[in-house]
Amino acid sequence: MGKIPIAIIGATGIVGQQFMVALQNHPWFEIYRLVASERSAGKNYREALYHDGIFGWYCDEGLKEELLEMRVISMDEFKPRDVKIVFTALDSSEAKVIEPKLAEKIPVISTASSFRYFDDIPILIPGVNNEHVELIRVQREKRGWEGFITPIPNCTTTGLAITLKPLDETFGLEKVLMTSLQAVSGAGRTSGVLALDILDNVIPYIPREEEKVQRETKKILGRFTGNSIEFSDVQVSCTCIRVNVRDGHTESVFVSMKKEADVEEAKQAFRTFGKSLRELNLPSAPKEMIVVHEDPSRPQPRLDRDTYDGMATIVGRVRKDEALPNGLKYVLLSHNTKMGAAKGAVLVAELLSKFGFIEGF
Amino acid sequence: MGKIPIAIIGATGIVGQQFMVALQNHPWFEIYRLVASERSAGKNYREALYHDGIFGWYCDEGLKEELLEMRVISMDEFKPRDVKIVFTALDSSEAKVIEPKLAEKIPVISTASSFRYFDDIPILIPGVNNEHVELIRVQREKRGWEGFITPIPNCTTTGLAITLKPLDETFGLEKVLMTSLQAVSGAGRTSGVLALDILDNVIPYIPREEEKVQRETKKILGRFTGNSIEFSDVQVSCTCIRVNVRDGHTESVFVSMKKEADVEEAKQAFRTFGKSLRELNLPSAPKEMIVVHEDPSRPQPRLDRDTYDGMATIVGRVRKDEALPNGLKYVLLSHNTKMGAAKGAVLVAELLSKFGFIEGF
Amino acid sequence: MGKIPIAIIGATGIVGQQFMVALQNHPWFEIYRLVASERSAGKNYREALYHDGIFGWYCDEGLKEELLEMRVISMDEFKPRDVKIVFTALDSSEAKVIEPKLAEKIPVISTASSFRYFDDIPILIPGVNNEHVELIRVQREKRGWEGFITPIPNCTTTGLAITLKPLDETFGLEKVLMTSLQAVSGAGRTSGVLALDILDNVIPYIPREEEKVQRETKKILGRFTGNSIEFSDVQVSCTCIRVNVRDGHTESVFVSMKKEADVEEAKQAFRTFGKSLRELNLPSAPKEMIVVHEDPSRPQPRLDRDTYDGMATIVGRVRKDEALPNGLKYVLLSHNTKMGAAKGAVLVAELLSKFGFIEGF
Amino acid sequence: MGKIPIAIIGATGIVGQQFMVALQNHPWFEIYRLVASERSAGKNYREALYHDGIFGWYCDEGLKEELLEMRVISMDEFKPRDVKIVFTALDSSEAKVIEPKLAEKIPVISTASSFRYFDDIPILIPGVNNEHVELIRVQREKRGWEGFITPIPNCTTTGLAITLKPLDETFGLEKVLMTSLQAVSGAGRTSGVLALDILDNVIPYIPREEEKVQRETKKILGRFTGNSIEFSDVQVSCTCIRVNVRDGHTESVFVSMKKEADVEEAKQAFRTFGKSLRELNLPSAPKEMIVVHEDPSRPQPRLDRDTYDGMATIVGRVRKDEALPNGLKYVLLSHNTKMGAAKGAVLVAELLSKFGFIEGF
Repeated sequence: MGKIPIAIIGATGIVGQQFMVALQNHPWFEIYRLVASERSAGKNYREALYHDGIFGWYCDEGLKEELLEMRVISMDEFKPRDVKIVFTALDSSEAKVIEPKLAEKIPVISTASSFRYFDDIPILIPGVNNEHVELIRVQREKRGWEGFITPIPNCTTTGLAITLKPLDETFGLEKVLMTSLQAVSGAGRTSGVLALDILDNVIPYIPREEEKVQRETKKILGRFTGNSIEFSDVQVSCTCIRVNVRDGHTESVFVSMKKEADVEEAKQAFRTFGKSLRELNLPSAPKEMIVVHEDPSRPQPRLDRDTYDGMATIVGRVRKDEALPNGLKYVLLSHNTKMGAAKGAVLVAELLSKFGFIEGF
Repeated sequence: MGKIPIAIIGATGIVGQQFMVALQNHPWFEIYRLVASERSAGKNYREALYHDGIFGWYCDEGLKEELLEMRVISMDEFKPRDVKIVFTALDSSEAKVIEPKLAEKIPVISTASSFRYFDDIPILIPGVNNEHVELIRVQREKRGWEGFITPIPNCTTTGLAITLKPLDETFGLEKVLMTSLQAVSGAGRTSGVLALDILDNVIPYIPREEEKVQRETKKILGRFTGNSIEFSDVQVSCTCIRVNVRDGHTESVFVSMKKEADVEEAKQAFRTFGKSLRELNLPSAPKEMIVVHEDPSRPQPRLDRDTYDGMATIVGRVRKDEALPNGLKYVLLSHNTKMGAAKGAVLVAELLSKFGFIEGF
Repeated sequence: MGKIPIAIIGATGIVGQQFMVALQNHPWFEIYRLVASERSAGKNYREALYHDGIFGWYCDEGLKEELLEMRVISMDEFKPRDVKIVFTALDSSEAKVIEPKLAEKIPVISTASSFRYFDDIPILIPGVNNEHVELIRVQREKRGWEGFITPIPNCTTTGLAITLKPLDETFGLEKVLMTSLQAVSGAGRTSGVLALDILDNVIPYIPREEEKVQRETKKILGRFTGNSIEFSDVQVSCTCIRVNVRDGHTESVFVSMKKEADVEEAKQAFRTFGKSLRELNLPSAPKEMIVVHEDPSRPQPRLDRDTYDGMATIVGRVRKDEALPNGLKYVLLSHNTKMGAAKGAVLVAELLSKFGFIEGF
Repeated sequence: MGKIPIAIIGATGIVGQQFMVALQNHPWFEIYRLVASERSAGKNYREALYHDGIFGWYCDEGLKEELLEMRVISMDEFKPRDVKIVFTALDSSEAKVIEPKLAEKIPVISTASSFRYFDDIPILIPGVNNEHVELIRVQREKRGWEGFITPIPNCTTTGLAITLKPLDETFGLEKVLMTSLQAVSGAGRTSGVLALDILDNVIPYIPREEEKVQRETKKILGRFTGNSIEFSDVQVSCTCIRVNVRDGHTESVFVSMKKEADVEEAKQAFRTFGKSLRELNLPSAPKEMIVVHEDPSRPQPRLDRDTYDGMATIVGRVRKDEALPNGLKYVLLSHNTKMGAAKGAVLVAELLSKFGFIEGF
């Protein structure tokens, strides 16, 4: 049986490049079409990355020769039915227009925020809310699509939701107060963070970020009722701050629980979390969803972000919080351009394959 | 009338240097004795700063010629009664031994933590808890000292306590949850943060820092009862994180109040705070104790830390917090090596002068 | 006698803002017109700097209220004869079109490179090549302009040319080999250096920079022959590297001289250089054009860039170079956004005023 | 046949840790003894790395369990004849005393500078000066040692010497003018570079570094005459600068050759260099000794330092230099804590094994 052909839309941008890396040696999927802007169309991928003699490749990993030589096509040239999945790396305004057209015909796994807040569209994190996949059937029926759209969450939501889920299951979540220290790669290249703004500095504001995290967390932790998602009633409040770190979002979390929360019990809940994911044996899944450190100086972005290839969420400093009722506090780290972006989207595609939503699997 | 002669103990270290700058043109005080280790004693100040041909001066400001040529003496040589105040820039273990001996004879304003937690020793922040100065009389009587010890708070406590005080007065404080993003200069030079540890990184742990902030805040916000301080019953919880910023501690604060807290009322309370300080006309006091920004991208350490010469606390992003009862959230910035260290200690000396605790004023 | 009215073209950009700061309290010049793009025109200056609620002001210094409230006009609205000088902060392609039109009527001091390489246009550095001002008469005659264009050099050329001039006068220059370590602010904001590219990194290439430095240095050090500039025959070779520093270009220089070059003599030549500038008493001129350090760890950008308000060139590590004939080596530092940009252009305007090229002075 | 037992002296420091990583899966050598200070002796390696609950492991790579559990012994306990090679990671003053004692009995591969400048001691870079190994016989005879000492060069010398060798062979070297931009890890931890000194800064001075580079380069490029090394007469001059990069020394090099140096010929010489190394099939040798980039923005430390596991020297921007006779200029990058430190020392041990200097191989 051959691999499942997929396309990457927006293949030359920074998220597109991450998709290339995440998929270049994938056991199930095969990169079959590369779609980019008119400027790149017609060139091979290597040529499309060159500007003024400088090679604009931004991933730490290299790319194999045959992909560097693959021809890039334009959106007009692209025939959705040539592939079984499209991964999109578009900005919100483009995604809004392009993704529904594609979803009429095939599954769309999206890194954009455009469709995250619709009632019939799930925000999936494998291992956290697998049962939300069923919302896809509602979506298809309602919209009359053969395909569907499943966006991944904002990269700041991902690690938070992953760590909150086992706490919610174990103690019942009441309140979450989170301060993020976010990496510059989260802002991408087009409207990226300038060195002269962030050097010797932190910037305590990331437009629209806090609203996304608060809203998405409640949806992801919500309950699928059969035809919709009932949002979790946990109260989430956050302050999102940019710091001078390349990759890896650190989050300082204070939580209040419905019942007495023991520190050791919480660590145990973190460590054992992810059974539903492990059982599926998805190729991009980390060996452990959450890694807990006892060393109080961890997690640190530079040391820990690449744990299990950037797919694990790292937790440390789990302590009692004396100010909140049944309070706990901890620090988490999540790789914003791996689990929080393209590789996270590939993991979603793997989940959907296992669950029968991808044709030909 | 001449200026009041003062001494700096530990004059060649980084905090000692900051004392030099804070005092070199002071209208009331005059640097009269420089005390440092045996290695420096006998040299003039300029020579004492040279190591292997490199001039170890770390402040942004320069120093005037006559101070560079002033002779440094050893602790043994130093006669406390030659001056009216000593400012100490010692590490905790040294302070523990040296400060009480000095306090037998003269007032000691200390940047060390050694005596902060004794019942009879106030932690003063001018404008926040002026009435705590009265504890000095209790201290003198109990210990039989002619002088006294008044430590300033930990640099992370300072900005937090300054912003909490007006909120407490206006709404009544219940709970405080704070995450700090602390500058590397806070760790000083001896056990300073190495570039290779903090570059492209944050470190979510600063040994003993959180305990200090929690304890000191409750004491500073406490009530002087006539012979002791009754700690505030506010619950304070924090996570202290090191970031790659040179100067200026940023703090993300979530607070829960006793009564409904309106955002505009809170800003007004911040802006008008400090009347008791302004009325005293102290030379090192900032024009405004708290500066409030409406621009959501502020405060930023690089842009705002030097506001009013590093003596103001800068506040931004004042918003409702929906997760906590009567909740507010905001971000503050405080200059850890100015208001949070030597210049803050000089401000304390000014307050004590006005209040009649310094002989000869 | 009133001040001379001037205009800033491109007033809202980063160099434009630096012009505002350099001119806001100028004793001779008065900011009379602010010209910017259609997007800003009609607003007052403060409003024009706001984008999405964020105040885009990038200088360390503040701006006085009356300038914040000054109305910004469009190029169409601007009448050149309302002012006596225009300072332009445009990119090269805009400068190419706009500057000649202005120069038909009034003097244009430009920070763009568009006109630097024309035979009849001088690249002025006050104190280095004052006599090149005479080329302006040639320019006016040839082009039939009432005004003229005088560009300042590339910011990397400035410090190099300033330090080479006294060496050339003293020993006769043969060869210059220079490696620059350039600050990120040199790239501006529009195509600025992204934090994710320069964090934990250096980039050994700045497009077109090396050619500019090599060409401009030979022109600036050249001899005015009466109607043109005879280029210096010094051979200049350089490698320009971007480093993660905000402001201040550091340059490692190796020079070969025509005759034996003594280190102490070289330092003396540096220290005494600038007599022709000092005698003119220009308001923006530094007290010393070149400051020489004996401490081998200097100059350092963070410590030294603001010497004499960013207008001095700082030199250190002056040593014999044993590899080159009559060789010397040294390190210099020049503030790329002060002496190397707007403030340097204001200094040129001051020189031109003294020399009678500005009407009304 | 079993692996050759080796010892690491100074095993817990930063270079010691790099030796652990470089040797943990080595096909020829086996870590058999770990020697460290009295403070660590008696603990297992993991425990020895903990201080105040924080795990002081600084390499990007992890360490296998059995090594973490290996017992650390003191120098007194250590019996040199238990192993066949010792790798030392000591500071110069310790190395001076300890290394000769060990060399009486066994081969010592050293990262310290203490013995680099003795007439009978070679500074080896495999592939560059293999024939210098013969000096070991002279050394043994002269000193009456059963073992010997072979230090590796200073980390800044390594990449320079590797790139100069093929140029010397092809065109004949006359002069070298080099400016280095050195990473902070080069300064280690004990007297490491503080974040507050290097943030937003460069420091144009590294004590004693320039002298080392100049001297070692001439020795490494020298000719073995049968009983000593005749130094190369190339003239080397350099300026060594610290920049805020974690790992990877970048060097801007200008060279003058004995004969006309064509750029393409130079690139070809770089690319084909290392035949003598490749033929030996040493396990730690890079696939290519020198990698040449055509992209002008390369090499960059963050992107290129780990090429071939940090063992290759990366070259870019190879151009004519018009200022020097037969001049060329280029930029190189070398990983200072891999090829330039422990892994480079392991490569030397491999070379010595092949050449019959290690017993039991």
